Amino acid sequence: MIDSNEKYMNLALKEAIKGAGHVSPNPLVGAVIVQNDKIIGKGYHKLYGQAHAEVNAIASCHENPAGSILFVTLEPCSHHGKTPPCTDMIIKHRFKKVFIGTTDPSPHSAGKGVEILKKAGIEVHTGICEEKCRILNAPFFHYLSHGTPLIILKAAVSLDGSLATDSGDSKWITNEKSRKFAHKLRNLYDAVLVGKNTVLKDDPELTARYRSGRNPVRIVAEKDLGLPLDRKIFDGSAESMIITSESISASMETFYNDKGISLVKVSEKSGFLDLEKAFKIIGKKGIRSIMVEGGGTMHNYLLKNKLAHRINLFIAPKLIGSGRKFFFGSGFEKISDCIDLDIISSKNLDGDLYIDASIRYSD
Amino acid sequence: MIDSNEKYMNLALKEAIKGAGHVSPNPLVGAVIVQNDKIIGKGYHKLYGQAHAEVNAIASCHENPAGSILFVTLEPCSHHGKTPPCTDMIIKHRFKKVFIGTTDPSPHSAGKGVEILKKAGIEVHTGICEEKCRILNAPFFHYLSHGTPLIILKAAVSLDGSLATDSGDSKWITNEKSRKFAHKLRNLYDAVLVGKNTVLKDDPELTARYRSGRNPVRIVAEKDLGLPLDRKIFDGSAESMIITSESISASMETFYNDKGISLVKVSEKSGFLDLEKAFKIIGKKGIRSIMVEGGGTMHNYLLKNKLAHRINLFIAPKLIGSGRKFFFGSGFEKISDCIDLDIISSKNLDGDLYIDASIRYSD
Repeated sequence: MIDSNEKYMNLALKEAIKGAGHVSPNPLVGAVIVQNDKIIGKGYHKLYGQAHAEVNAIASCHENPAGSILFVTLEPCSHHGKTPPCTDMIIKHRFKKVFIGTTDPSPHSAGKGVEILKKAGIEVHTGICEEKCRILNAPFFHYLSHGTPLIILKAAVSLDGSLATDSGDSKWITNEKSRKFAHKLRNLYDAVLVGKNTVLKDDPELTARYRSGRNPVRIVAEKDLGLPLDRKIFDGSAESMIITSESISASMETFYNDKGISLVKVSEKSGFLDLEKAFKIIGKKGIRSIMVEGGGTMHNYLLKNKLAHRINLFIAPKLIGSGRKFFFGSGFEKISDCIDLDIISSKNLDGDLYIDASIRYSD
Repeated sequence: MIDSNEKYMNLALKEAIKGAGHVSPNPLVGAVIVQNDKIIGKGYHKLYGQAHAEVNAIASCHENPAGSILFVTLEPCSHHGKTPPCTDMIIKHRFKKVFIGTTDPSPHSAGKGVEILKKAGIEVHTGICEEKCRILNAPFFHYLSHGTPLIILKAAVSLDGSLATDSGDSKWITNEKSRKFAHKLRNLYDAVLVGKNTVLKDDPELTARYRSGRNPVRIVAEKDLGLPLDRKIFDGSAESMIITSESISASMETFYNDKGISLVKVSEKSGFLDLEKAFKIIGKKGIRSIMVEGGGTMHNYLLKNKLAHRINLFIAPKLIGSGRKFFFGSGFEKISDCIDLDIISSKNLDGDLYIDASIRYSD
């Protein structure tokens, strides 16, 4: 049985997700205001730099919120940032209780909001639907803990694990609904990473075509800077970045920078660019999440080096047999050494299966 | 919205499935008796040769069924077989209406039951939840149309399509709940087919350990009759059969027959036993369904030769990378040539995904 606190927090979560693609590097936040078991207001953080969820929820109230209960997915802020502290607003409107999904681990927050509200005599409860509230903002929490972006593998595969036939045909493994949803996902993350071959073969735009909102930074991993600059990912419609070799000269770098393309220069490790190092550099640029739309070799590199954290997999009810495998490279000796996935959510998309999962590596 | 006729037919389907493993070569049949929108009796065909579902449902009535409605998943029989005609029983008990899931295509039936009931003044409706009623007895319908067994591939795979690691470790890809359910499936089918290597490596019993009921006939495909006879599949606890080469001598065949093992001798086609021919011979023996628990090569043979009809797949949230693939062999050139699966049902088994699907080949 779901209790009523969880019910309202789930509604606040639904509010929060509406801001997807518009608030990063801020977290997604949603709020619901309840009086006598009736919702009198709700809101979410709509755009980076603008009003927080609590403020929008209060503004939406069709009754005076004094004495009511606030459900908010993340601890209210207590500092003067781009907007005044939400705690002031909550106290001013004389809320009776505040239910919080998860506390905010940011240095200027981390329990301070809870403390201030309690001192003002408000009853505060934390940890309502906490896991969901943390998963909602996985990049935010990951980045605060590690300083590096959350790495999400995204792929469309057949039920037997192929990205394409042996001849490279992949149009289309998944159905239209899956493909639309996959485009939407790009909006959730700060950046998209592809390999050189994808750019050469498919010339993708890597923008979030099917949905209004900000485009992700487009990153390609490419040792030799051999890609023609007329490729769509360099078209200026969104930021572009190349992860490349540290041997690239400063003058070459200037040439690329002048074209609006920034370079992330790293050493090579057994023939591969050191993506772990690249992710650290990219993290320092403030990018908190990277969705990887790679091939089997890149997936293998990221999985074998334990660099990928999440997987967004679209699985079509098709059998390809021999084909280009999603996870291509040397395998594991024992089943117990294999990679486990913890399913966060799954859904049926007109017959395709979508899985969002955390990747758990064996020790 | 599901209407009340469908609701009662679904309950009759639930009754029918209770007979799984006990009625073949008869179909599974369930019946529900309804009076004034209240269930007054229900029953199913429990054991081959014994009372039909309608008779058991009538016997279970705690009120006189006269004037009530009968929901039955398959057209009532109208001939004297091992039991008297159900149509007589229905007329005798003065049912007002009969709702039938699907007509019975058997030569002695095929609409005759419906006709007899109508002539007796009973209102008859057919085609209620028809697809479900047909899928319930897929082997029965397939066999009546083709005279050959329905071929079902069963496998436990990782999310990237492997049956085992490269070194052959497969214990365990799927969880305990999946494995128990997989054993139960054996009960649904008349026979289980494995390859020689499975017998050598795993020495499986291929019985339906976790469930009371009849064991399937155990079939192994093996050209040279080189398997040691102390293997468990030859232990006499259930019928055993070997699909082997037509070059096997009559005296050798007698030797095997004396051990209680029957041989199905077929020619070879490019190094493989001609399983299509074997299935025809096995069909003539009255076996209506074979669940294949094979390796990647056998699956490839059956899929490439369009011999498999259904797939029962247990998918674990694991990534194995390079490994022994479920569907191993030459692939397809184009996505449009690949094999499509029509999902009949799917369920979550403690985190594993179970899929029951029909296999659709491109032309």
